[in-house]
Amino acid sequence: MTTLYEHGTLAALMAGNLAGTLSLKELLTHGSTGLGTFDGVDGEVVILDGEVYQADATGRVNHVTDPNVMLPFASVHFPGNDQQAVTVTATSKAALQTALTTKYQLANVFAYVRVSGEFDHVKVRIAPKQTQPYPSLLEVAKHQPVFEQTHVSGTLLGYYAPDIFGTVTAAGWHLHFISDDRQFAGHVLEFTGGELTGELEIFDSLEQHLPIHDQAFRQGKVDLDSLKAGIYAAEG
Amino acid sequence: MTTLYEHGTLAALMAGNLAGTLSLKELLTHGSTGLGTFDGVDGEVVILDGEVYQADATGRVNHVTDPNVMLPFASVHFPGNDQQAVTVTATSKAALQTALTTKYQLANVFAYVRVSGEFDHVKVRIAPKQTQPYPSLLEVAKHQPVFEQTHVSGTLLGYYAPDIFGTVTAAGWHLHFISDDRQFAGHVLEFTGGELTGELEIFDSLEQHLPIHDQAFRQGKVDLDSLKAGIYAAEG
Repeated sequence: MTTLYEHGTLAALMAGNLAGTLSLKELLTHGSTGLGTFDGVDGEVVILDGEVYQADATGRVNHVTDPNVMLPFASVHFPGNDQQAVTVTATSKAALQTALTTKYQLANVFAYVRVSGEFDHVKVRIAPKQTQPYPSLLEVAKHQPVFEQTHVSGTLLGYYAPDIFGTVTAAGWHLHFISDDRQFAGHVLEFTGGELTGELEIFDSLEQHLPIHDQAFRQGKVDLDSLKAGIYAAEG
Repeated sequence: MTTLYEHGTLAALMAGNLAGTLSLKELLTHGSTGLGTFDGVDGEVVILDGEVYQADATGRVNHVTDPNVMLPFASVHFPGNDQQAVTVTATSKAALQTALTTKYQLANVFAYVRVSGEFDHVKVRIAPKQTQPYPSLLEVAKHQPVFEQTHVSGTLLGYYAPDIFGTVTAAGWHLHFISDDRQFAGHVLEFTGGELTGELEIFDSLEQHLPIHDQAFRQGKVDLDSLKAGIYAAEG
């Protein structure tokens, strides 16, 4: 059995529930690799082999060791024995995504990919920390700093989720990047690159954890139609 | 931590993937209580304290002990320490559902209820076993036998799922019934009853298991718009 653990939902973020609801300490008991964001959608988090990095809205990358930092949303797993070696010669984000989804027949399953190599160009965005009263994630998405680097070696990692889970989490691929020197990271908007190698893993289970003791979450109202329009605008 | 385990998805059933993809033996390692259906949507399954009952399309209730029977869809859990005692004096399915959802603030969480007592009237439907090539669950829903009983003592049990999971599983309440004499059971369409007592439990996690080794599942095409229209027609 291979399990992807996820805390929080995209719907809750879209509803403006941006406060952290799970500690990093607790999160790391469910996985050593993954991605997420901190309290108030403070930046883009990359977790690699148990080490936690946060790209903040200034573009700086922080190595995070405080176990008490809180997260409203994160996806993690423990890399298992079911990993398949992948080599991709994709030249863009769209090409990589299509190649993996098609070759490994991912449409209806959850999957993970991690590939490393030399990138000609990487463009990322980084969510800036919000304060209460929190806006919707849709509002946040309109004002996000973008950073670019050329000729950077690093790692791209993230998850694939089926369309039917598109209100629970980001449908399709959700990829973060971190450079080998740990100085550049973020949510990947675009990249061009040469040969990338790494691993892909298909999960048979999603463990979806909800912040059931959080009153903002419990009382949140979800309108599915406006939620979908918002997700398309924020994540599309 | 309290976990609801679910195998299969409503989307896959709607796409006509009705073949069993998990054995009863495996299912029971994830819970002792719950509901589901057998290979080919053969009937309505009730699992109570580890005992498995199937109402088939003739209206007969079978006590199932074969661990190798397969299920395309099921939801189970192990009742835990977080159960709350509930007493409902609801007189109908709609009243019960609204009362529980409101009182326990269930809108955004997964929950379980099990209540027993004397029912004035219970109306159930039972899915008839399909053969390959399988139709969509929507087609199956158009031709389902309905059974009724009056003055019957029994147990109503099932799960609540948030709207945003409405393509993964049945959103709102999904309730099955079984009589105390184990002679009458099915998917609850309507009931009227007096005072019912039992337990309610709120889960903090959904463990969603997918049949990743099933080719029909992997190759299935999901069109979200028609899926939603179909779910509304089949389950609404």
